[in-house]
Amino acid sequence: MTEKVWRIGVAGLGTVGAGLIKFIQARPDFVPATGVRVEIAGVSARSRSRKRDIDISTYTWFDDPVALAQSPDIDLLVELVGGSDGPAKAAVEAALKAGKPVVTANKALIAEHGLELAKLAEEKGVPLLFEAAVMGGAPAVKFVREAMLGDDLQAISGILNGTCNYILSTMEQTGASFADVLAEAQRLGYAEADPTADVGGFDTAHKITILAALAFGGAPNYAAAEISGIDTVELIDIRMAHDLGYRIKLIASAERGEGGASVRVAPQLVPLTHPLAQAMGSLNALFIEGACVGRLFLQGPGAGEGPTAAAVSADIADVIAGAVRPVFQGPAAGLAPLPAARDAGWHGKAYIRLLVRDRPGVIAAVSEALAKAEVSIDSILQRPVDDTGQVPIVLTTQPASEAAVKDALSHIADLDAAVEPPRMFRIAHV
Amino acid sequence: MTEKVWRIGVAGLGTVGAGLIKFIQARPDFVPATGVRVEIAGVSARSRSRKRDIDISTYTWFDDPVALAQSPDIDLLVELVGGSDGPAKAAVEAALKAGKPVVTANKALIAEHGLELAKLAEEKGVPLLFEAAVMGGAPAVKFVREAMLGDDLQAISGILNGTCNYILSTMEQTGASFADVLAEAQRLGYAEADPTADVGGFDTAHKITILAALAFGGAPNYAAAEISGIDTVELIDIRMAHDLGYRIKLIASAERGEGGASVRVAPQLVPLTHPLAQAMGSLNALFIEGACVGRLFLQGPGAGEGPTAAAVSADIADVIAGAVRPVFQGPAAGLAPLPAARDAGWHGKAYIRLLVRDRPGVIAAVSEALAKAEVSIDSILQRPVDDTGQVPIVLTTQPASEAAVKDALSHIADLDAAVEPPRMFRIAHV
Repeated sequence: MTEKVWRIGVAGLGTVGAGLIKFIQARPDFVPATGVRVEIAGVSARSRSRKRDIDISTYTWFDDPVALAQSPDIDLLVELVGGSDGPAKAAVEAALKAGKPVVTANKALIAEHGLELAKLAEEKGVPLLFEAAVMGGAPAVKFVREAMLGDDLQAISGILNGTCNYILSTMEQTGASFADVLAEAQRLGYAEADPTADVGGFDTAHKITILAALAFGGAPNYAAAEISGIDTVELIDIRMAHDLGYRIKLIASAERGEGGASVRVAPQLVPLTHPLAQAMGSLNALFIEGACVGRLFLQGPGAGEGPTAAAVSADIADVIAGAVRPVFQGPAAGLAPLPAARDAGWHGKAYIRLLVRDRPGVIAAVSEALAKAEVSIDSILQRPVDDTGQVPIVLTTQPASEAAVKDALSHIADLDAAVEPPRMFRIAHV
Repeated sequence: MTEKVWRIGVAGLGTVGAGLIKFIQARPDFVPATGVRVEIAGVSARSRSRKRDIDISTYTWFDDPVALAQSPDIDLLVELVGGSDGPAKAAVEAALKAGKPVVTANKALIAEHGLELAKLAEEKGVPLLFEAAVMGGAPAVKFVREAMLGDDLQAISGILNGTCNYILSTMEQTGASFADVLAEAQRLGYAEADPTADVGGFDTAHKITILAALAFGGAPNYAAAEISGIDTVELIDIRMAHDLGYRIKLIASAERGEGGASVRVAPQLVPLTHPLAQAMGSLNALFIEGACVGRLFLQGPGAGEGPTAAAVSADIADVIAGAVRPVFQGPAAGLAPLPAARDAGWHGKAYIRLLVRDRPGVIAAVSEALAKAEVSIDSILQRPVDDTGQVPIVLTTQPASEAAVKDALSHIADLDAAVEPPRMFRIAHV
């Protein structure tokens, strides 16, 4: 029997690319079908001469990832360049146009251009897979796309960015500030030199946008996501939250709503006993709730060479297995970006922290500001006054509408005693 | 465009069969491909007239599931009859021989006859899928077979039987005895009239046997599994374990060892803070550890109409997607039953409970018995003497070999003061 060789082109030789090459070098026959072997045939990256811990000298080098995608010596393109546009998009388009399957780890690309690429892939009848884009080696995409298919999914929520989770966990464990922990994470290579995509919540938003599309049957609609990052979380919030029985996590959530879905990324307070609160360090964790299946929970390392390379490899094996599925849930020609739900914002409890000048009647004034907005107070914590004469006050509210909480915040900000605008995080309803 | 209709035959109309029929009646177009529709064409069950909450009057009735499997009006057989032999096996074989794909929820069948059926399926070139056999709607099979494929898996451990987990959880929460909780579970329909398969650990063993085969690249080898059930767990053990910081769970585990794998089912003490200890009621939970991927955790409802029907539906969608994969990890023609590892048993801490006549020197005698076996004591708990004059003593050991612990147990059993043979559970190394 003749052995069928699949010739892989790898565009992008960073951590994941190197991991993939090691994986395939170690296990060229990892696809469990008779007579199939996978080999790396060509590679492309920004710098050919950069020091790497893998030997790439036997692979054909391409300066241009588009040329790699178009090369007749390549059967399948793995895109690990990153970025929603530029060379990553150009290479993926070139491969699909040439009728070649594409496997990518690029969440920005799929979240921002998923529909357009899915249309192209389906016109050409080739798969476009992106398991590694969400939760590294934990198969979140396969989960929602294949295992919960047909179920009436209601909600997804979880922790999808290991860098943010590492920063929040380390702040809690060491008592260091956000800035110090971020700097240390950058030094260790856990955070990028420009950390905006991670700490600003944008990476998380790309990921939840993809999962929401798969869960609720639309194309990704990144523009509709509401995004707040962790750069507003201070050590005092982490400590106050802990005293109240919560841990602050960057929570991605997608809920079915009227006419579409609400997709949000924001720091939230999660009860200490909840599994999402217990996912520490760089772990990712995800709840998926379906009408038939009930609540499923998936947890694993969200990034890193090994996990992400394993996810890419699983996608390569899926391409070779030859399943014919649409890129999202339903043929791309009939899909539209998943609309934002037409509901009036979230509803739930909130944590509010304010800094006020210590003077008689401050608590009364704060209470009054909340009462004016018809928001009831659940608990209040006041810290001892330090020598600045400024007092942090933390309060939690009874369940209220987003509009009412925002109204209360504006009344609080207007108080004479207020030193800075109040900080607000939702208390997760999990 | 002509619509392609897949005509499904359902053998077995219990809880899962009824759930599947409801699912497909509600969502005939759940497969997200263009122009594919799924319809139930024929059904078979033991009793045609039994009262059911679904309407089956429009489906062709077959008294014999083999005739259903062979019917020219059926494109795909769903086997939900259950049992490792008899009509379930006959129907699955008949369908495969007729070149028809089979989807089954039958763990006993796959664990005990998986290799033989896989060979038949692969000779005929048709898929044989069994996602619903393990963890209900949580995609454990897809996880190990597709998502962690190619990774060097090291160990799997988890809770795979909802009935046992419900019984142990309820004993802890209500303080009722094993017998009382079992009787109540039977009354509520959570446990079978003959509970042996569940409480004896055999159902769990079928499931871990299947996962071990997929994880470690062999065919299922049910005969090699070491099995203990929860019928040896008494309320006093649950309470004593709790006082020591543990919860007793029926743990299924599979570990790579010399020349094969160690596959075990037994009640074990799990630290209260561990995710496996926190999976209460009928939840199932699973850790999978791979060299590349790291530790993944999956949790969900392990059984029930909705979850299991969703898993069967996902398999039907996979059949229709047309992926060509071997039934296990590698072509069945080249597989052998996964051998038992040639190692000398487990190594770890143990919990030992004994009942002795209260007399001076008993603790000294017990210590001596352990010392003779070279097992060191980690902690001892002795309860106050009641009016029977018999004292329960609970001790935990330092890590020791299985042989040494068993040696210690035989010395303890030989003590004059011993009222009954000592009870031993492992403390999970998780």
